Amino acid sequence: MSNRLNPLDAAWLFTESRATPNHVGGLLQFRLPPDAPKDFLRRLMEDFRSHRDFTAPWNQRLKLPFNKNPVPVWVDETEAGAIDLEYHVRHAALPWPGGERELGELVGRLHSAPIDLQRPPWECTIIEGLSDDRFALFVKMHHSLIDGVSGMKLLEKAMATTAEKSLTLPPFWASGSSGTPKAPRPTKAGPSPTMANATSAIVEALSGQARSLPQLVTAFGKILKRIGDPSDGLAVPFDAPRSILNGRVREKRRFATQQFPLTRLRAVADAADSTLNDVVLAVCGGALRRFLLERDALPEKPLTAGIPVSVRPRDDEGTGNAISFIVATLGTDVEDAIERLAAIKASVKHAKAHVQSLPRAAMLQYTMLLMAPTIITLLTGIGGRTPPMFNITVSNVPGPDKPLYFRGAELLSIYPASIVTHGQALNITCESYNGQMNFGFTACHTSLPSTQKLAVYAVEALAELEDGLGIKRPKARPVPAKADQKAAAPRKAVRRKTGD
Amino acid sequence: MSNRLNPLDAAWLFTESRATPNHVGGLLQFRLPPDAPKDFLRRLMEDFRSHRDFTAPWNQRLKLPFNKNPVPVWVDETEAGAIDLEYHVRHAALPWPGGERELGELVGRLHSAPIDLQRPPWECTIIEGLSDDRFALFVKMHHSLIDGVSGMKLLEKAMATTAEKSLTLPPFWASGSSGTPKAPRPTKAGPSPTMANATSAIVEALSGQARSLPQLVTAFGKILKRIGDPSDGLAVPFDAPRSILNGRVREKRRFATQQFPLTRLRAVADAADSTLNDVVLAVCGGALRRFLLERDALPEKPLTAGIPVSVRPRDDEGTGNAISFIVATLGTDVEDAIERLAAIKASVKHAKAHVQSLPRAAMLQYTMLLMAPTIITLLTGIGGRTPPMFNITVSNVPGPDKPLYFRGAELLSIYPASIVTHGQALNITCESYNGQMNFGFTACHTSLPSTQKLAVYAVEALAELEDGLGIKRPKARPVPAKADQKAAAPRKAVRRKTGD
Repeated sequence: MSNRLNPLDAAWLFTESRATPNHVGGLLQFRLPPDAPKDFLRRLMEDFRSHRDFTAPWNQRLKLPFNKNPVPVWVDETEAGAIDLEYHVRHAALPWPGGERELGELVGRLHSAPIDLQRPPWECTIIEGLSDDRFALFVKMHHSLIDGVSGMKLLEKAMATTAEKSLTLPPFWASGSSGTPKAPRPTKAGPSPTMANATSAIVEALSGQARSLPQLVTAFGKILKRIGDPSDGLAVPFDAPRSILNGRVREKRRFATQQFPLTRLRAVADAADSTLNDVVLAVCGGALRRFLLERDALPEKPLTAGIPVSVRPRDDEGTGNAISFIVATLGTDVEDAIERLAAIKASVKHAKAHVQSLPRAAMLQYTMLLMAPTIITLLTGIGGRTPPMFNITVSNVPGPDKPLYFRGAELLSIYPASIVTHGQALNITCESYNGQMNFGFTACHTSLPSTQKLAVYAVEALAELEDGLGIKRPKARPVPAKADQKAAAPRKAVRRKTGD
Repeated sequence: MSNRLNPLDAAWLFTESRATPNHVGGLLQFRLPPDAPKDFLRRLMEDFRSHRDFTAPWNQRLKLPFNKNPVPVWVDETEAGAIDLEYHVRHAALPWPGGERELGELVGRLHSAPIDLQRPPWECTIIEGLSDDRFALFVKMHHSLIDGVSGMKLLEKAMATTAEKSLTLPPFWASGSSGTPKAPRPTKAGPSPTMANATSAIVEALSGQARSLPQLVTAFGKILKRIGDPSDGLAVPFDAPRSILNGRVREKRRFATQQFPLTRLRAVADAADSTLNDVVLAVCGGALRRFLLERDALPEKPLTAGIPVSVRPRDDEGTGNAISFIVATLGTDVEDAIERLAAIKASVKHAKAHVQSLPRAAMLQYTMLLMAPTIITLLTGIGGRTPPMFNITVSNVPGPDKPLYFRGAELLSIYPASIVTHGQALNITCESYNGQMNFGFTACHTSLPSTQKLAVYAVEALAELEDGLGIKRPKARPVPAKADQKAAAPRKAVRRKTGD
């Protein structure tokens, strides 16, 4: 088996730049074990740094081959001593009071720093000083090594389902996934509907026609041109407005989080006869509308979201499915929350029905058309200078539905941190875990000041939906008066939010 | 007055790379005011972020001109709103127990991250969680904007000489140095003997012959060739061995610190009839010898140090002086501490006498020859592939001799963090402050594992000198048993050290 990177993985390397480092991250929050000594995390770090038993992908690093092929290969770092755990494992802390705002600032900073690509491209930071006896781990991996969702799955697999079983677990890198990370065992559900999987399918299809990156770009351009011909019967469903989300980005990132009980989202979905994903989009749309209105930056036309979806093509007679990509409205032009949800529901339904009605070949072309800006950016590193095809990617990935533990500590939440690139200054990726839906907002620090307000406004947006549908909301927890929240959330209580 | 960067300042930009970001830093440690509330630092950060009154150089950013000259110019950011203090001012914390080791790890990390060159190139991090009621500020500035020593002076000028006067001080950027940073008012003592000043003199002299960077490189090469002719009577005083200090560097940094009372260093200098600077070099040499011996990496030939010195050329009839550069042994081949100091003393004396005997023009050529690797690296970005002309730069700069205060907090120490580049994986810069000598060790994370041991071994090296000269040492403070110090300092007590 060749370890040479496929064109898509290589693209994550070739388009890596100071302004656009292409790594993904996962923020895991834990409750400290009840009997944890004061130096629990210091010992954890020392223990982590002593575990020199590596399994793929944690021991893989890039090597530029000395021949005419410019595409790097993955090599196993066979000498365990060659992996410097002082580089890969770090120990950080939050300033007092150690709330979500301080955590968000730190994670934003950690997510901004590029990974050293001469080493196995990952980092793990142990974060102490969180309020309420919590701590966190933030794990970064380069997208050429693994995509975000596979990375999250890898972390989840390294935890246990009871506190007791978790006591003796080794660190993630020693936990023995022996398979290669790029070919995870297929599950019944098939691949997750992620941006990476959708892009993979496209680039794989294109790779049949072209073997090198420049050839790939040319091939892609030709296909796009053909599809662009209106006689083909395919049209872009939405005409995305220009917005502050779609310019060139700078190197610093912000990260914010939000968590909702799945029961609340499901209650809204049931009452409005829509899907959980529609509700997630409506929460995002509501939050974005208020966020942009405040900045006097709300486009007249609605913002649109690119959404990776799992569909079954018309001519697929087996049990397989495929990852496609739809573009739907976020209803940011609609003032009423319920009407906004209705607009989103109709738009998603229409887009999904359309893509499902297509035979596999046409679906591929359709997906390709919609993903054009993303793929062009990926293949060439150029983006943010043309009108956007859609304004923002919103992914929604199912995660573990039972509590997980590590070293006696209960996992409280799991937030994906994704990639921001030219033309796409904001990414929202959601992952469910143990009855909660966790939202991770990753943004360009310059393009989106006060990203944490998006997290706060998401609470507002859900409350508006509940109010509009006559759903009784859970009693709000009292919120400590913080200067920075006064302006942000005057009306409703804030459950959880991570600042930036 | 043109704001176009001079060739030297521009070189710091052109040679900026992922592995070699060219910024300098200053670590200031403070004692919290006795009555400081729990949110003292949080309030300090909020106050810092609200000060939108900028003086040069804090409001200057680079702009690439739209004409044929590729050299950027400095422009004032006139709209105060354009400076994003959320980027420039950060708030971080140390993990428990908040000792020198944890501080060194954090500062190493902060010093590794490149500065966004599209903004005024500086960052200020407020660090809380230090043990013994301390906190710290770490300020980074790009070397194209200011050199390390001028940067330190700028910070010092923004503090007050009494706690009371310091209560209402604005942040550094608002404290009203209205002059340009590159032309500080000349003091009686003349320019400080720093690497930057020495390099400046050379590049200025070269600039008379060449106006662009490529021309400068050519001109420099021609002069070097001429000097290299042995008939010229100038020879390289030391033949630096190859060592782990002189290869290519990677992007991550380590930072370690050490502090000694000046009285101890002076007592050794007096007893051995040598200078304070000789003792500083002997402490560095002793620490490096043990550090390299442990790694089985001590070259047979002695390591040599490049040392910026302030001299008066033979034909200088005025009161001026000039910054030159000497190369002296660090005596790492000598086992006995006293003999090592004697070797260093003789070597420094010889080198200084030689350079002082030269007329100004020859001195310039001599300096140029010694600084060849540094200047070539600076002008071309290539370094670490040829044998080193010297192994390490050791600078020793006089700082304030009275205590300083900021916002009621006493400044306890001041450590310079310098630049590491290809061919120079370690830099030691010392600055005196209020009766103490502060050592800052800046190193490439990959080339120099456990840099903090150098800081520990510096304590050993000074103790050996004191023992050898029969000087009674101050009673060692009891050291808390820390796992990481056991191996490092079995014999002597450790006063202060910063880990990496």
